[in-house]
Amino acid sequence: MRAEIIAIGNEVLRGQIADTNSAFLARRLSQVGVEVARMITIEDSLEIITHEIKGALSRSDLVITTGGLGPTSDDLTRQALAKALGRPLIFVEDLWGQIEERLSQRGVAPFPENRSQAYLPQGAEGVPNPLGTAPGIHLKIEGKILFSLPGVPQEMRSMAEKFLLPQLKGKPIPHCVLRTTGISESEIYQRIKSLTGSHQVKIAFLPSPLGVDLGIEAPAKGTSQEISQVVERIEEILGEAIYGGEGEGLEEVVGRLLAQREETLAVAESCTGGLICDRLTDISGSSRYFERGVISYSNQAKLELLGVPPETIREHGAVSPQTAIAMAEGIREISDTDYGLSVTGIAGPTGGSREKPVGLCFIGFAHRGGSSYQRYLFAGPRRLNKERAAQAALNMVRLFLCLGISKISETRG
Amino acid sequence: MRAEIIAIGNEVLRGQIADTNSAFLARRLSQVGVEVARMITIEDSLEIITHEIKGALSRSDLVITTGGLGPTSDDLTRQALAKALGRPLIFVEDLWGQIEERLSQRGVAPFPENRSQAYLPQGAEGVPNPLGTAPGIHLKIEGKILFSLPGVPQEMRSMAEKFLLPQLKGKPIPHCVLRTTGISESEIYQRIKSLTGSHQVKIAFLPSPLGVDLGIEAPAKGTSQEISQVVERIEEILGEAIYGGEGEGLEEVVGRLLAQREETLAVAESCTGGLICDRLTDISGSSRYFERGVISYSNQAKLELLGVPPETIREHGAVSPQTAIAMAEGIREISDTDYGLSVTGIAGPTGGSREKPVGLCFIGFAHRGGSSYQRYLFAGPRRLNKERAAQAALNMVRLFLCLGISKISETRG
Repeated sequence: MRAEIIAIGNEVLRGQIADTNSAFLARRLSQVGVEVARMITIEDSLEIITHEIKGALSRSDLVITTGGLGPTSDDLTRQALAKALGRPLIFVEDLWGQIEERLSQRGVAPFPENRSQAYLPQGAEGVPNPLGTAPGIHLKIEGKILFSLPGVPQEMRSMAEKFLLPQLKGKPIPHCVLRTTGISESEIYQRIKSLTGSHQVKIAFLPSPLGVDLGIEAPAKGTSQEISQVVERIEEILGEAIYGGEGEGLEEVVGRLLAQREETLAVAESCTGGLICDRLTDISGSSRYFERGVISYSNQAKLELLGVPPETIREHGAVSPQTAIAMAEGIREISDTDYGLSVTGIAGPTGGSREKPVGLCFIGFAHRGGSSYQRYLFAGPRRLNKERAAQAALNMVRLFLCLGISKISETRG
Repeated sequence: MRAEIIAIGNEVLRGQIADTNSAFLARRLSQVGVEVARMITIEDSLEIITHEIKGALSRSDLVITTGGLGPTSDDLTRQALAKALGRPLIFVEDLWGQIEERLSQRGVAPFPENRSQAYLPQGAEGVPNPLGTAPGIHLKIEGKILFSLPGVPQEMRSMAEKFLLPQLKGKPIPHCVLRTTGISESEIYQRIKSLTGSHQVKIAFLPSPLGVDLGIEAPAKGTSQEISQVVERIEEILGEAIYGGEGEGLEEVVGRLLAQREETLAVAESCTGGLICDRLTDISGSSRYFERGVISYSNQAKLELLGVPPETIREHGAVSPQTAIAMAEGIREISDTDYGLSVTGIAGPTGGSREKPVGLCFIGFAHRGGSSYQRYLFAGPRRLNKERAAQAALNMVRLFLCLGISKISETRG
């Protein structure tokens, strides 16, 4: 099955909004074996939208549009669809009922403009929008499938998952993702180079600032078994640098390890400012193992909430191995958890000095048997430094839970 | 000047990599007054790339391609360019010298494949790549400009900034962004409908789950002055629903207000799990006004760290107006700050009940003169509920700082 994706909206072409919808759809469609052949972003113009929908329907089996389904006058997808198909727009009472109900749940009275959202090209069905008011549009025409979904990513995603993807039954391309962190792309390449020459099994390197993902797939003749063999070899070679599989975050892996061991964690953050706690609590059920967090942004908070000795900060500074350790031990003690994790550093862009430059960061980890720290020097802008520090901190917990203290560097305790 | 962007690469169509290049180029081109009319992503196929380059050159003044300039056999942009232009590829000694030099700086001997990167269509110039080995290609043809840049975002960006953008001297499109929250797209549309009919000044609605941005611009004949008039009218009509301008987050606005007043804030989060603190600390200099945060995920933490009375939780539950107020007052008291902000709720997807469904959320706010709360019922998945709650909480602080207590609903204190 061949698909095309059409993103509609001036705001994307002007760079005011990045189109994340097309990448999401491309990934999910590939996973169910649908080949995306073309993705295009076009402006809010009735003529252009109509032209592109027509062209896509002539070339492909599945056409998905995103955007342009709102209630305002620059929302033109509905009309373009009708024009491309040569069918009239019809007011659908049921759909209007759903829109009214959704608005009233929010305590909002419908506006006249909302009525426009209840019009569909003749023969089309409305696609319920569980998160917003704009319904989608679904149509089958001469064996081809057309879906028009709203542009708001959360709405588009939930509607695609619920109504679009279950309809598609392509043959999935066998593939597997291995996620790594704490190791560079070049080093991975050096170490697994001998596996990259195969025509049956391709290895794609997908680097990001938080780690490198490896995509292993058998595009043409390869089988799942051949993929498994390559994956096994990579796992042997890269070992603990691999933390998870497709779509799996470190917060999920750490959470699973803690839940399995029925152990608990508390976190004290300074420069990461809450990001570690935020990530940990993104996982449903995290209250089983995440007990509390403290964002000790001021020194006063470090003393009062975590019991960091004033002389530790006076002698070594707030950004030091000693303070990191004291924070980790402090949060563990007051929370009565199995583990305490801490981060203290200089996120930047200001606040650095010659001895303690921007990007310097200490991660502390306390457990029943002692405590340890790791030192990092990140070189990015503020947000990236926060993200890298949070990733390194979660990875330190993971490594301890997987391997024990021996593999954590610069151990003390 | 009208531009088109062509992204080349199977990995984008498979969803293995999100194309961030096109969004970057769209934003930067808009800023220098170039109108991006079309962005397309296509596969590594000589025929298709050739076809799209030809089409784009026939329609637009500027064509930019990204990707497909590497040394491997699936890098086809060079050949497609030559084919689209009907010109031969010529080996350029100078360019080869640069590639060899760059590789040797990295301590790498050139592979035979690298030689392919030194070929250019007749009449084209190489574009130096300061961060990688793949040079870009630049060509002027019948008054039109063509740039082929590599797909690696960092390389593409630095080459675009250095060699592409300085060549373009469009007239920037006058525009302005107003960001709103706590008001629906339909309601905004109702209220400012009379302003949307103008041909000189266009108003774009950019909804997201956290609020609606309004893009006001004068695409054709409008002037900055006309935009200012429309912006003033919108500001009069929407009032405090507008919180900021282009690219400005609520955390920045709240931070600025606090810094101006030389006041301080502390935050106690339950269901938002650290997200509010994370957002506040994304702003450089936030340590001036953000004193500390507590993620009181367990009830024990609410009692111990915030001094929430056990009977409050026993009688009303952890998710209740009373607990929200006690958390806000507690964090304010222990931190000795001007303001205390709290969130308690059920992020979901589990943990809800009939009386207290998933998505129920109370935001507490404590100040010198008393305290108040707001109740929300969010209907999204876990992450979205966290994001909406954090946004509503930051907005509650902003409204108090702008308007005083009178405009905050359900006041108590």
